[in-house]
Amino acid sequence: MIRFECDYAEGCHPALLKALTDTNFEQHPGYGEDAHCDRARQLIKEQLEAPHANVHFLVGGTQANATVICAALRPHQGAIAAVTGHINVHETGAIEALGHKVLPLPSTDGRISAEQVEAYCAGHWGDATHEHMVQPGMVYISQPTENGTLYTLEQLTALRKVCDKYDLMLYVDGARCGYGLASPKNDVLLPDLARLCDVFYIGGTKVGALFGEAVVIMNEKLNKDFRYFIKRQGGMLAKGRLLGVQFETLMEKGLYQQLGQHAVSLALEIRKTFEECGVSLLYDSPTNQQFPILTKAERDAFAEKYAFSHWETLDDDLAAVRFCTSWFTPEENVRQLIQDIRRICRR
Amino acid sequence: MIRFECDYAEGCHPALLKALTDTNFEQHPGYGEDAHCDRARQLIKEQLEAPHANVHFLVGGTQANATVICAALRPHQGAIAAVTGHINVHETGAIEALGHKVLPLPSTDGRISAEQVEAYCAGHWGDATHEHMVQPGMVYISQPTENGTLYTLEQLTALRKVCDKYDLMLYVDGARCGYGLASPKNDVLLPDLARLCDVFYIGGTKVGALFGEAVVIMNEKLNKDFRYFIKRQGGMLAKGRLLGVQFETLMEKGLYQQLGQHAVSLALEIRKTFEECGVSLLYDSPTNQQFPILTKAERDAFAEKYAFSHWETLDDDLAAVRFCTSWFTPEENVRQLIQDIRRICRR
Amino acid sequence: MIRFECDYAEGCHPALLKALTDTNFEQHPGYGEDAHCDRARQLIKEQLEAPHANVHFLVGGTQANATVICAALRPHQGAIAAVTGHINVHETGAIEALGHKVLPLPSTDGRISAEQVEAYCAGHWGDATHEHMVQPGMVYISQPTENGTLYTLEQLTALRKVCDKYDLMLYVDGARCGYGLASPKNDVLLPDLARLCDVFYIGGTKVGALFGEAVVIMNEKLNKDFRYFIKRQGGMLAKGRLLGVQFETLMEKGLYQQLGQHAVSLALEIRKTFEECGVSLLYDSPTNQQFPILTKAERDAFAEKYAFSHWETLDDDLAAVRFCTSWFTPEENVRQLIQDIRRICRR
Amino acid sequence: MIRFECDYAEGCHPALLKALTDTNFEQHPGYGEDAHCDRARQLIKEQLEAPHANVHFLVGGTQANATVICAALRPHQGAIAAVTGHINVHETGAIEALGHKVLPLPSTDGRISAEQVEAYCAGHWGDATHEHMVQPGMVYISQPTENGTLYTLEQLTALRKVCDKYDLMLYVDGARCGYGLASPKNDVLLPDLARLCDVFYIGGTKVGALFGEAVVIMNEKLNKDFRYFIKRQGGMLAKGRLLGVQFETLMEKGLYQQLGQHAVSLALEIRKTFEECGVSLLYDSPTNQQFPILTKAERDAFAEKYAFSHWETLDDDLAAVRFCTSWFTPEENVRQLIQDIRRICRR
Repeated sequence: MIRFECDYAEGCHPALLKALTDTNFEQHPGYGEDAHCDRARQLIKEQLEAPHANVHFLVGGTQANATVICAALRPHQGAIAAVTGHINVHETGAIEALGHKVLPLPSTDGRISAEQVEAYCAGHWGDATHEHMVQPGMVYISQPTENGTLYTLEQLTALRKVCDKYDLMLYVDGARCGYGLASPKNDVLLPDLARLCDVFYIGGTKVGALFGEAVVIMNEKLNKDFRYFIKRQGGMLAKGRLLGVQFETLMEKGLYQQLGQHAVSLALEIRKTFEECGVSLLYDSPTNQQFPILTKAERDAFAEKYAFSHWETLDDDLAAVRFCTSWFTPEENVRQLIQDIRRICRR
Repeated sequence: MIRFECDYAEGCHPALLKALTDTNFEQHPGYGEDAHCDRARQLIKEQLEAPHANVHFLVGGTQANATVICAALRPHQGAIAAVTGHINVHETGAIEALGHKVLPLPSTDGRISAEQVEAYCAGHWGDATHEHMVQPGMVYISQPTENGTLYTLEQLTALRKVCDKYDLMLYVDGARCGYGLASPKNDVLLPDLARLCDVFYIGGTKVGALFGEAVVIMNEKLNKDFRYFIKRQGGMLAKGRLLGVQFETLMEKGLYQQLGQHAVSLALEIRKTFEECGVSLLYDSPTNQQFPILTKAERDAFAEKYAFSHWETLDDDLAAVRFCTSWFTPEENVRQLIQDIRRICRR
Repeated sequence: MIRFECDYAEGCHPALLKALTDTNFEQHPGYGEDAHCDRARQLIKEQLEAPHANVHFLVGGTQANATVICAALRPHQGAIAAVTGHINVHETGAIEALGHKVLPLPSTDGRISAEQVEAYCAGHWGDATHEHMVQPGMVYISQPTENGTLYTLEQLTALRKVCDKYDLMLYVDGARCGYGLASPKNDVLLPDLARLCDVFYIGGTKVGALFGEAVVIMNEKLNKDFRYFIKRQGGMLAKGRLLGVQFETLMEKGLYQQLGQHAVSLALEIRKTFEECGVSLLYDSPTNQQFPILTKAERDAFAEKYAFSHWETLDDDLAAVRFCTSWFTPEENVRQLIQDIRRICRR
Repeated sequence: MIRFECDYAEGCHPALLKALTDTNFEQHPGYGEDAHCDRARQLIKEQLEAPHANVHFLVGGTQANATVICAALRPHQGAIAAVTGHINVHETGAIEALGHKVLPLPSTDGRISAEQVEAYCAGHWGDATHEHMVQPGMVYISQPTENGTLYTLEQLTALRKVCDKYDLMLYVDGARCGYGLASPKNDVLLPDLARLCDVFYIGGTKVGALFGEAVVIMNEKLNKDFRYFIKRQGGMLAKGRLLGVQFETLMEKGLYQQLGQHAVSLALEIRKTFEECGVSLLYDSPTNQQFPILTKAERDAFAEKYAFSHWETLDDDLAAVRFCTSWFTPEENVRQLIQDIRRICRR
């Protein structure tokens, strides 16, 4: 079975494992206050061109989202998100567990627009009894989105503007950040994220690490006492060095960028092949996730040899599925898949 | 500097790192549903002699405590604990974050007794307005305690009995479980924990793993939907295999037991030397943490060469400190320490 | 200004105030354990034909909803509701404050169907990673709905059936219960609610009381320790007698029914007049709230003499507004309004 | 049976009931935005000599405490309180329900000192791993305390000073405020509370109202969006006028003060009689609650004729009980009690 069903099926890039092994017997203080975390922070800040950024390392994405949102909002505030946003669908209510409502906006491809946010906030503040409703306090977006799409710099700048108008935090979930940065269609660079967001995270788990997300806080108010929030959420890793060592390795010598490019270039070859065969894609994704719409016969044919995910049933015959590449995906596997697309999807 | 200040200053036992390296390119489903987790579960259940136990792997101790307590209690219930219990002091309110009060009982050495629990519950239920107070729903203890002491089998059995009487869950925090099992004074074996507790955890982080705690649920009612609670708390590790591989290695060929014995036998040598030199110990600890009461001059003398923790100021001159051994502690370091105790603590 | 903008603009029916005055110097135990609460409970149970019902009196509707939902659900569960449901829109996240997600279903008139609930639950349980999503644990509906519409006995029975299938609690918010019972279109009687629901409440605040809602719990499991939940939520009224005296008065001699009928018969006259004048109504409401769709000119004309609420903007000219009658509404006011409808809405 | 067991056994002072009756058919906007609430706010601010105070009316004390504390603290912060404080003992974890730990300090008579708070905060901030512990964010005290004792102006000023030093909110629970103000030993006037506290409340429920507490917020930062918090907690009374009318009546013509003086002068006569008879009092209370230490025989003798509360068992024979006067207590009842004390407690 050749696997395209997710981007976290293997361990980590060998360079990270080697670094963990090389440093295994070093003795370090716990909880992220060691020299490796410090160096990883420094490397990240250099890439962000943001010497005043605050960087905290957490183990996973749901943990990062819950910790950030709890620290950012007052209790009566909620986070505006696409109805498809990870926090609204796939975190078992981790945000609500901390007392906050997710305020969902409709979305066709995983993105929400500044206009939507504007309309929502205008509606809230224009209502005479607005205190009977959850107050919008944040805009949460994912870059890339859960559907593989990307915000443009123009769109992100517009979101920043509406956030300023309504005193909202802007938070970017970067679980697949590396696959966004590597896309030829991307025009939002790390320094742009640092400039436009109050907070965002650079994902490691899905981009070559064993685990780990680097939360970057640009808003000093939010950073105050943030380590208390990490601990309160159960996210303060005793041997924090493990996160430091991994991000140190990812961030030096351009490894993080290389891993992203590897995955995205292969995904775009897959996409191109589907398109050449007349297969429609559910979303216009320029990143490592591709969502071809296949007939049942086609899906059955692929399933004999490939693992991939069901995404959405469209009618009795058609359904969108997800093929996902990763930092690990062997080129040879993609070559085979391309041949099989050409064979199976003759239309 | 020779370090005795905690039991999590290094990475992990080399056998675990080797296993992680050997399995790195295997492809596995995420979230703890892989073959390594399955095998680790099997090995643990064999040691517990409890084929019906449910085992869940979590990254850290605060996460384990919060997840278990949230799943075990109804919202109006609290967890009885020693005032010194980890959940009452050192988790930044992670239990309260989920809506539960910790109900502290006084303790001189980290333990609480069945009599104390009996008196507390009798007081609660005997009060005509008991619904104005948090209802006790659980007894939380640590074995070994935060002070290195151990419950005897008789004490644990008595706690079980009072839990049965008042319909309380019995939960044992085993962050240092391996150092308790290895103590010559210990008479509570793993099968006893499985027989007497509703839930407990076997700690990996402090006993040779990079991270990881194995939560063992014996009470089926508590196990229902437990994986939802893990995810909601942000504790569902994407690459759950990492926990499986580590516990698989720890649990086979007696490695976990060996690591515990190494640390405890060295700690008891340190203790014996302090006692021979006439130094009192704050707690009667038969495990890997020792708490000698030293004068300022003695502390200063040790501090030139050793790292250890301040524990409690007793008067202008005297203070208790903590020397902590671990699975890693080199014997040679203990030899030196013993010589220095004899030199410094001549009384 | 003649007021039709809500059903809680006045104090209470004079009979309740007289009863409060007559009993003012009686001495009673606090917290709802007095003779008046007992008698009110008895009267309610007689009307429900449910001797084993458990009745608890709370001050307000949001408090009732939050307390019931917190007691009914485990932490990882959410409440399915119409997207327009009160708990989803107008309670400032009181449900989320206690850790629960509201799971909104689309609705055109305030109602949701058994088919929708079935599809939602089938989707949840059919998903291989369902533990990454909030588990549906309850169906919350309002009767009448926030839009004045009513569930039929058939619809309610179908909801009960799907709740049984998926182990969901069925909870009916009866803030305007009296106006539903009084509708000529209603076929859901109090004994039907008692038979089909796990829990519901009979609203007093909007139907003639100073304040107060009678929560009726039919499911014994939910009733266990419910008084702890009331206190925890800050809803345990010290002088609980005030709720007992009011519900005692409402429930004897058919006063509650009379107040409902007064309001509904006047509302239906208003509705009929709008319809006769060719004015469409946004919802097909057979209860005390009516939602005519008016032009701007018409709205301006009414606004000179009447207070009513804006409901929804439909286009540049048209908007739906709400005219609301109550237990208090003087008949004379409705006579005038009817004349003015005929004058203003000539089409 | 002559009742001295609590101060909320009756309805309300007749003047309040008359005012409610007189205003019953007035039509008002809901949720505390009516003319009576406005006037009551004005009267309170005059008595506080604090034109910039913000006054919010809530139904009960637990609700007030939970709402204030939730609005005042960030999630990782807790409220320092006497171990006997109402929030620590008798609110079924309402504070924890909102995610906050109560940080209890020992107390012999219900009070805590500035020195204790200083030591606690110095300990927290002096600990290198303070982020592993709940951060103190508020000092909560009751005036009078749950034991009837009073803070002096000097003590309160010292608490304010330590709050300033450690950036803590100072919150005074005034459930029995009227009985403190009326004490001959009291030197903390309403303008002092306004000057020294960030927030406090003036209790109505126990001092002559049907229900109601006036929360006074002096700290603008805390007042921001406070009405959202009221609604979120389920404390936004639909017919807010009921609170306005009652506080308007209490606050004009010195009624609140008169009711307090009535109760306190009778309580002090009871105290004096116990003392003359050689009976010790558990606390040195100058307010409406008195705690004589009685033998079993004495308690039995009183119980034939009087209702009072058990407070604390001291030994096999002795126990402290509570006799409580109120705004309502008939003088004649106290005359009889005094005679009976002289008869029963001859020592």
